Amino acid sequence: MSKPFKRILMTGAAGGLGSRLREHLQEFAEIVRLSDVADLGPARPGEEVVRCDLADRDQVLEMCQGVDAILHFGGVSTETEFQPIMAANILGVVNLYEAVHKLGIRRVVFASSNHTMGMYRTTEIVDASMPTRPDGYYGVSKVFGESLSRLYWDRFGIETVCIRIGYCFPEATTHRQLATWLGLDDLVQLLRRSLLTPRVGHTIAFGVSDNPGKWWDDRHSRFLRYQPTQSSRPFADRVADAVDGSAPNEPALVYQGGPFLNIELKYKD
Amino acid sequence: MSKPFKRILMTGAAGGLGSRLREHLQEFAEIVRLSDVADLGPARPGEEVVRCDLADRDQVLEMCQGVDAILHFGGVSTETEFQPIMAANILGVVNLYEAVHKLGIRRVVFASSNHTMGMYRTTEIVDASMPTRPDGYYGVSKVFGESLSRLYWDRFGIETVCIRIGYCFPEATTHRQLATWLGLDDLVQLLRRSLLTPRVGHTIAFGVSDNPGKWWDDRHSRFLRYQPTQSSRPFADRVADAVDGSAPNEPALVYQGGPFLNIELKYKD
Amino acid sequence: MSKPFKRILMTGAAGGLGSRLREHLQEFAEIVRLSDVADLGPARPGEEVVRCDLADRDQVLEMCQGVDAILHFGGVSTETEFQPIMAANILGVVNLYEAVHKLGIRRVVFASSNHTMGMYRTTEIVDASMPTRPDGYYGVSKVFGESLSRLYWDRFGIETVCIRIGYCFPEATTHRQLATWLGLDDLVQLLRRSLLTPRVGHTIAFGVSDNPGKWWDDRHSRFLRYQPTQSSRPFADRVADAVDGSAPNEPALVYQGGPFLNIELKYKD
Amino acid sequence: MSKPFKRILMTGAAGGLGSRLREHLQEFAEIVRLSDVADLGPARPGEEVVRCDLADRDQVLEMCQGVDAILHFGGVSTETEFQPIMAANILGVVNLYEAVHKLGIRRVVFASSNHTMGMYRTTEIVDASMPTRPDGYYGVSKVFGESLSRLYWDRFGIETVCIRIGYCFPEATTHRQLATWLGLDDLVQLLRRSLLTPRVGHTIAFGVSDNPGKWWDDRHSRFLRYQPTQSSRPFADRVADAVDGSAPNEPALVYQGGPFLNIELKYKD
Amino acid sequence: MSKPFKRILMTGAAGGLGSRLREHLQEFAEIVRLSDVADLGPARPGEEVVRCDLADRDQVLEMCQGVDAILHFGGVSTETEFQPIMAANILGVVNLYEAVHKLGIRRVVFASSNHTMGMYRTTEIVDASMPTRPDGYYGVSKVFGESLSRLYWDRFGIETVCIRIGYCFPEATTHRQLATWLGLDDLVQLLRRSLLTPRVGHTIAFGVSDNPGKWWDDRHSRFLRYQPTQSSRPFADRVADAVDGSAPNEPALVYQGGPFLNIELKYKD
Amino acid sequence: MSKPFKRILMTGAAGGLGSRLREHLQEFAEIVRLSDVADLGPARPGEEVVRCDLADRDQVLEMCQGVDAILHFGGVSTETEFQPIMAANILGVVNLYEAVHKLGIRRVVFASSNHTMGMYRTTEIVDASMPTRPDGYYGVSKVFGESLSRLYWDRFGIETVCIRIGYCFPEATTHRQLATWLGLDDLVQLLRRSLLTPRVGHTIAFGVSDNPGKWWDDRHSRFLRYQPTQSSRPFADRVADAVDGSAPNEPALVYQGGPFLNIELKYKD
Repeated sequence: MSKPFKRILMTGAAGGLGSRLREHLQEFAEIVRLSDVADLGPARPGEEVVRCDLADRDQVLEMCQGVDAILHFGGVSTETEFQPIMAANILGVVNLYEAVHKLGIRRVVFASSNHTMGMYRTTEIVDASMPTRPDGYYGVSKVFGESLSRLYWDRFGIETVCIRIGYCFPEATTHRQLATWLGLDDLVQLLRRSLLTPRVGHTIAFGVSDNPGKWWDDRHSRFLRYQPTQSSRPFADRVADAVDGSAPNEPALVYQGGPFLNIELKYKD
Repeated sequence: MSKPFKRILMTGAAGGLGSRLREHLQEFAEIVRLSDVADLGPARPGEEVVRCDLADRDQVLEMCQGVDAILHFGGVSTETEFQPIMAANILGVVNLYEAVHKLGIRRVVFASSNHTMGMYRTTEIVDASMPTRPDGYYGVSKVFGESLSRLYWDRFGIETVCIRIGYCFPEATTHRQLATWLGLDDLVQLLRRSLLTPRVGHTIAFGVSDNPGKWWDDRHSRFLRYQPTQSSRPFADRVADAVDGSAPNEPALVYQGGPFLNIELKYKD
Repeated sequence: MSKPFKRILMTGAAGGLGSRLREHLQEFAEIVRLSDVADLGPARPGEEVVRCDLADRDQVLEMCQGVDAILHFGGVSTETEFQPIMAANILGVVNLYEAVHKLGIRRVVFASSNHTMGMYRTTEIVDASMPTRPDGYYGVSKVFGESLSRLYWDRFGIETVCIRIGYCFPEATTHRQLATWLGLDDLVQLLRRSLLTPRVGHTIAFGVSDNPGKWWDDRHSRFLRYQPTQSSRPFADRVADAVDGSAPNEPALVYQGGPFLNIELKYKD
Repeated sequence: MSKPFKRILMTGAAGGLGSRLREHLQEFAEIVRLSDVADLGPARPGEEVVRCDLADRDQVLEMCQGVDAILHFGGVSTETEFQPIMAANILGVVNLYEAVHKLGIRRVVFASSNHTMGMYRTTEIVDASMPTRPDGYYGVSKVFGESLSRLYWDRFGIETVCIRIGYCFPEATTHRQLATWLGLDDLVQLLRRSLLTPRVGHTIAFGVSDNPGKWWDDRHSRFLRYQPTQSSRPFADRVADAVDGSAPNEPALVYQGGPFLNIELKYKD
Repeated sequence: MSKPFKRILMTGAAGGLGSRLREHLQEFAEIVRLSDVADLGPARPGEEVVRCDLADRDQVLEMCQGVDAILHFGGVSTETEFQPIMAANILGVVNLYEAVHKLGIRRVVFASSNHTMGMYRTTEIVDASMPTRPDGYYGVSKVFGESLSRLYWDRFGIETVCIRIGYCFPEATTHRQLATWLGLDDLVQLLRRSLLTPRVGHTIAFGVSDNPGKWWDDRHSRFLRYQPTQSSRPFADRVADAVDGSAPNEPALVYQGGPFLNIELKYKD
Repeated sequence: MSKPFKRILMTGAAGGLGSRLREHLQEFAEIVRLSDVADLGPARPGEEVVRCDLADRDQVLEMCQGVDAILHFGGVSTETEFQPIMAANILGVVNLYEAVHKLGIRRVVFASSNHTMGMYRTTEIVDASMPTRPDGYYGVSKVFGESLSRLYWDRFGIETVCIRIGYCFPEATTHRQLATWLGLDDLVQLLRRSLLTPRVGHTIAFGVSDNPGKWWDDRHSRFLRYQPTQSSRPFADRVADAVDGSAPNEPALVYQGGPFLNIELKYKD
């Protein structure tokens, strides 16, 4: 049976998520091109490996040649100094969409983040129609990416699914993680649906498993047919349900952004 | 055990849906009166059979005599010339509600259609509070029926459940059908709930099974206690998930109305 | 200075509104074609006169030849038997849009009615995004026209402004009329804005003057730049402000549709 | 393993719900203080028993001493004369929150009621953002409690979960009860989540099991991670689904408040 | 010319607002009955004077005899101890509506307060559909009155206009007062419209003049035809526009309730 | 009489808007510091002049020393290559807010742009709660600025009014400009209100005069007390009202962004 795409590109393939996803991409395309600014090791069967600095316009154009769709996981993936965030997440995303447009690529799946709305309270339910409330430079850079991809849809018809990824690690160990946890299988499913749904326009989806008490309402992306099969439920017992009244106004408890609220904004070190 | 109604009427009983539903109506009433403009064959036990042209006011009044509730599936059920649509779906519905009012019948279940909102995009989630966006003469005629039945509720207290029926055929074979599929058991259940819920007022419900990625949000009719037990999930594997980028702006892909978008509006042949 | 259109058509030109508007149309086009099923008298300078039964498809096509834009005021304009309403307001409007499409006419101003929402209460504020609530066959036929014109916009890009006209007579003499009154100059202004605004899409506007306490919120059509200069205020003193508690649940007081609520639905006389 | 609280207080512990809940509270705290104006019998292991008239400010302050969190089930729990409602549900709640504030207690779970919105129709879906529509003095007194607890959150940061409790009896025997039924295990779970969720602010939750056709949408309290495991489904078969058209406008059928609509408002007997 | 009512009652006639309004009530009725718990002096022509303690059920019934409509300005009108608020604003309002119902009086104008929503921020725009956010016991008692009057409308059809009165004193001298100011003539106009509009149902209106920058959106009561002719604009120049950054989080600046936020909640002195 | 601030800073003072505003700033502060990357000429009385490249972090910090509030008009103000936009509008704004935070400055007025929402249609009414829809790199950079300033409010309490400035030139000469025109006096008034309103939080306001048919609804910033006194009305007569049907789908007519829709996205020249 033939695969849906001839060639897809995953950026950020050497990163935390990228390396966990690498082995799951074969189903999507005959050739999976992997790229990163870091070393990716040798290409495995069905793979191509490309070294690319997203801030370098020519390298990005080169990287995108011959590609049918892109999973854009590249760039800085945590709160840090603004300078590298600007290079990779702002200039990098501009470079990417310029290449996408020039080359006639029609679909991008963009790894956005729940930190685009980290300043909502943990007692609020957020959906994709609500204004963004980023919690740091990282979050602001992801708002930029969502906004830029919206522009490329509105003006040029390039389709993007922005996935606001939750806490995607093997286990949830805090109350916040119980709400925001995303299992790897569910992420793979969401990538599949984002790549293969015939028509996606510009869609903001929430990358979160079927966790009880999750904060995010995915009603606007429901047409993607994403149906999580994983859940943070099994981890719930290990997370002590004791109420700690010692710091009731602690920002990391009050806001969805959690520990990011404790990170100072930095320009460069 | 006695049945909920003494006599119910189903119009359009010789049609596609009507003939599949015929054998499932016995539970609702001691006598099931079936009517159509086409031949219905002989009455079976528990049935009455009536020949009726919905455009004929006197025949319609006659057809409704002695009836406790009506399942109105009669009329034109697809996009075609306007003339027969006007006769059956506009004049026919006016005739029906006039008879209902005159005879003191208190509840109607009206087979409306998803084509009342076929001009929403497949990337939008639709609920019953959103403005109608019909995709052809057929859809406009169903908007007319919903509007007329609303009038009879607002002014005369006659209750109607308008069911916006999806794709009600044994199998789903396209992406659109995966989203809009309605299993027959689920339809029977929805008829049951529409007939037997003590109080329904004027309600717009979506006739759709528990399909992943369905486009319609039934929150406004949730009180009906309809809980689909069927799903298009089993058909999903047979529908190729390949992205066909050859016609990205093809109306039949962009809009919920699907293939109806390819049918020209016709006056008469 | 040249006029905005070469030729516009006004239907219903012999009717109550049509005859009051007749002399005000010269500014819009070099030639004003007037049509009605009733006699219009001889054409005056700058006019053409056409006899047309809206229910006659060929006559309608003929009537629309060579026209740049249409003010569609034709059809039945009050609550009456359904048969003539169906002929003129349903079939008539289908005939009209078929001709418009065939002939490549790009803009229609459709005289809709406040009776599309007559079943809202006089204590509610209505805007164009709210579901229609017609108060009779006439209101339902206007819902049909709004729905059909929406279809022609969604599928064919034909622009329509639907004006939900209020009480357009020289004087307001009841509480209801104080709320719904529309001065003739304001109507002319609204026609002007509906014809000349560069882009209108499919828009529902409220034809009402700057009356204190008006029930309708025009926020969705504000871009038309309509700014009423008339008001029912001068009539307010003549309308006794006495509270009549004798019939507090009188439908004509409770609902926006007013006296239409007292008219029985009739099929034909 | 230690329990989440050192001492919690349940008021109304001798009442219908209170006495059913009594044995389920041990998991929440090392010491469960029970209070009521009626006799509670002797304290069992892990319990303290306090006699308290909620209308008595000093008794209430005394009752709250040394408490970490409160389950406030005390007061009048049905439609009755206003005088006792005012004493227990209005003055009583003022006394309680004054004590809570004075003593630095940080969380209350308040037994509110579905009768705060009993005047919505059974064909409407209600959520916590909609205006209250109480159906009697009892309902109004619960609106008062919700409003007062909101004040204590907004001004003093005292957290409250208001649970609008449904029909919490062993079995559902009417259509209304099928919609509003709350199983005891589900109530205990909801109390647990209300007590132990790290941050609740001021939240209105619906105390209802996973009933098909339930009228209440809990989206605003979803973060509590309450997931009902009980349902009225098993009772549905025993509730005759016959449509009784004899009294279609019977308030007890039309409004969510049900039988309370048949109770006259009384001052005192 | 005859006056609209035979007899109206104004409660609280000796209070701050009551005494300023007294001379303006003659236009509404042939006989104006004034009542207060305090001394009202002798009745003037066209007046009746009644001494009444609102907490006394029998006195209230007596006071309402023979009355066609009520302006209910009685009760406590500022933040103070809860005990007198409960007596006058809670029990008093229950007594009033019981009498209104018993005597068949059909309309009440209830002096509610902006302090029902004092915990919204001064940077928010509030309308009548938003949840109440009272800022003290006084505000909570007004929420109670709004809720009780809603009950009497929903169950018994008694009409009430709740006027959330702003700052109704001769001059505005602070930023808050510029936003909330209500001129006396405007208040009289609003009373007139509330009394004389043929149908008001249960309506929440904002008692505020045409102040630039006002916080309240009256869209839900626009049908009352209230059109303020006064404005705080003339006072604006006298209010220094200096930004005082010394206490940016001062509750009295942050919240609409203003100085009430600085008043401690008190039980009794 | 003393001025509201001791020292304010206006960036971009040599630009088109900046130079027109320069003479109007004296009322706001004893000292007006003007800055630009271009030459500003000599300081006039009451002025200080600073040369500053916004992309230079140290220069920006220096520029902000001793300042009480900032009018940030600096940066690129039109659609152009991304590189200079990134330097001035992205890095520049990060530098600015870092300095603001470090120096304890409490209020910024940020010159945002209507191009943050240029992809809405000219038939839509936009308000500040709707998702941004930028029409080019310039618009995306302004979305970035709005998002960053929101972050500084949410985390650090720094207040910003983002003014989405319309067409601020002496005359309106196209249909689009009639809708978006902003008179200079109105802009000065809006700056005054943005600087002097005691509490603004993070607010998005629309910089537009009282133009008939304007596309933007300022309800969320109404508390600022901005009341335009200018209007594009006088220019309306000079703008031909002829409907040009030759290019009905021309993006510059369809979308609010207008001529920007005709500018290709460029990286650098």
